[in-house]
Amino acid sequence: MRQAGRYMPEYRAVRERYSFLDLCKDADAAADVTVTAVERLGVDAAIIFADILLIVEPMGVGLEFTKGDGPVLHHPVRTAADVARMPEVDAPAAVPFVYDAVRQAKAALKVPLIGFSGAPFTLASYVIEGGGSRNYIRTKSLMYSEPEAWHTLLRRLTTAVVGYLNAQIAAGADAVQLFDSWVGCLAPDDYRQFVLPHMQTLIRGLTPGVPVIHFGTGTCGLLELMRQAGGDVIGLDWHIELDAGWQRVGHDVAVQGNLDPVVLFGPVEEIRSRTVRILEQARGRHGHIFNLGHGILPNTPVDHVIALIDMVHELSSR
Amino acid sequence: MRQAGRYMPEYRAVRERYSFLDLCKDADAAADVTVTAVERLGVDAAIIFADILLIVEPMGVGLEFTKGDGPVLHHPVRTAADVARMPEVDAPAAVPFVYDAVRQAKAALKVPLIGFSGAPFTLASYVIEGGGSRNYIRTKSLMYSEPEAWHTLLRRLTTAVVGYLNAQIAAGADAVQLFDSWVGCLAPDDYRQFVLPHMQTLIRGLTPGVPVIHFGTGTCGLLELMRQAGGDVIGLDWHIELDAGWQRVGHDVAVQGNLDPVVLFGPVEEIRSRTVRILEQARGRHGHIFNLGHGILPNTPVDHVIALIDMVHELSSR
Repeated sequence: MRQAGRYMPEYRAVRERYSFLDLCKDADAAADVTVTAVERLGVDAAIIFADILLIVEPMGVGLEFTKGDGPVLHHPVRTAADVARMPEVDAPAAVPFVYDAVRQAKAALKVPLIGFSGAPFTLASYVIEGGGSRNYIRTKSLMYSEPEAWHTLLRRLTTAVVGYLNAQIAAGADAVQLFDSWVGCLAPDDYRQFVLPHMQTLIRGLTPGVPVIHFGTGTCGLLELMRQAGGDVIGLDWHIELDAGWQRVGHDVAVQGNLDPVVLFGPVEEIRSRTVRILEQARGRHGHIFNLGHGILPNTPVDHVIALIDMVHELSSR
Repeated sequence: MRQAGRYMPEYRAVRERYSFLDLCKDADAAADVTVTAVERLGVDAAIIFADILLIVEPMGVGLEFTKGDGPVLHHPVRTAADVARMPEVDAPAAVPFVYDAVRQAKAALKVPLIGFSGAPFTLASYVIEGGGSRNYIRTKSLMYSEPEAWHTLLRRLTTAVVGYLNAQIAAGADAVQLFDSWVGCLAPDDYRQFVLPHMQTLIRGLTPGVPVIHFGTGTCGLLELMRQAGGDVIGLDWHIELDAGWQRVGHDVAVQGNLDPVVLFGPVEEIRSRTVRILEQARGRHGHIFNLGHGILPNTPVDHVIALIDMVHELSSR
């Protein structure tokens, strides 16, 4: 996650010539950045260079990426009237640059390519808050105070994401990942009532036969519900031990995770001991994708990332 | 939690005359603010007006509370040398205003009074990061890279907190609460190695017979370990259902929680339906303290807080 990102000098060099959003919209450059990261790191799969919010930009929310502060949405959606005013998005037509980037990256790669999108709750949180949030007060207030408007918004986002991911699949993505990055702010009851039905609709709407990775953070209390929502692989973050998390979602589903990205700032021996522990917990079962529990952070030492990938290869081949 | 706080007009009026830190250091005013909140709300217990960081100020960290941005520590502790240079704190002598406030509030109150402190991990995170943090990179880096310095720091903080809480108890606190507010950023293994032994030392060092509430947020993956660390009451936040959390920590310990503070921004019927659900999960067992899952947020409608307290009284008396 954030395979190509600010921690990598090759990526920073490209970013000197492009703003973040311009880079996402230039299919050649986005594909190049995707492929360069794979070549530099030696990972077993690529994830397309894009942003979880690209699919909401055509909804007229005024998306901008500001330096340091992350995404800002200048026209947030906060009332039932705002929701009603949102334009319908024809996803397969709206963001052609993403599909072009997928096509080009796929043609250049020797490893599988993962497409992705933000999941409806996480997209809604940005659309409502107008950016990132600490407490999600506006998001939850809309849920609690105007449940019909909430469900209308989630239905719209769900439809858009289904179209968006299926178009990425049509363009060559071998698997897709749903980033419900901030859904962990919810109580289980809220998830059940306000998110679960939409996730089920979404995942049922995706092209059959293509693996779906269902990812979130802080989801330790939601794992059974996320499993119920669907996905071939459930993402686990580092707040739960891999074996405890796998038991909770069930061994008939695959899991992805779950090294704390901050461990990569520590010494290589520490990275190794934690990696060994994760792989030991997965040993003897099929369906574990080693990954970080969330995206790589800026300033992560690239040589530590490469050392991690090498040790996962070495330890898993034993 | 944050019973007296910015959401309350009476408190904001007092704050016009005092900075946050000056208010904490004026025992008369701190006791007044504590008592006023109880009278306004009709809660069953008071929590002393103070801050989780007051005990680290005498350690020379340059604590300041800036408007809007929360605590800033101008002299953070980031290396083994910084740790070695930290002055030892004679807690019972260092913060007399807190004990005076406890004494005065206790004399004025008809309900029990809770004393509190930040727990060592959470204090360490502020001391190392120099304020709040998103990813705790410096905190975890010290843990991973300089474990001896880490343990020295935690031992110092533990000793200080033991002295601090015992002095609050001697001044009249009927119970104490340990706020390990940010410990949820850790993987279970990190908690086991870097936090658990210190928490055990701390809790064993507290005056016997006085109930200890052990609180954290995002701790869904740590609950069993927090139980192992100790405490008569384990705090549960809203990310887990109360009954699932209680089962995890064991029914032979009490629990506190666990309404999402953001629910208070929603309509009263929504507050009620969630409160009913929590109380139903606690029904038939002894040892549930109804509370929010974290502190009250600024801008929370006071009448919703009062409505919540009234409905808990009404529903629990049935």
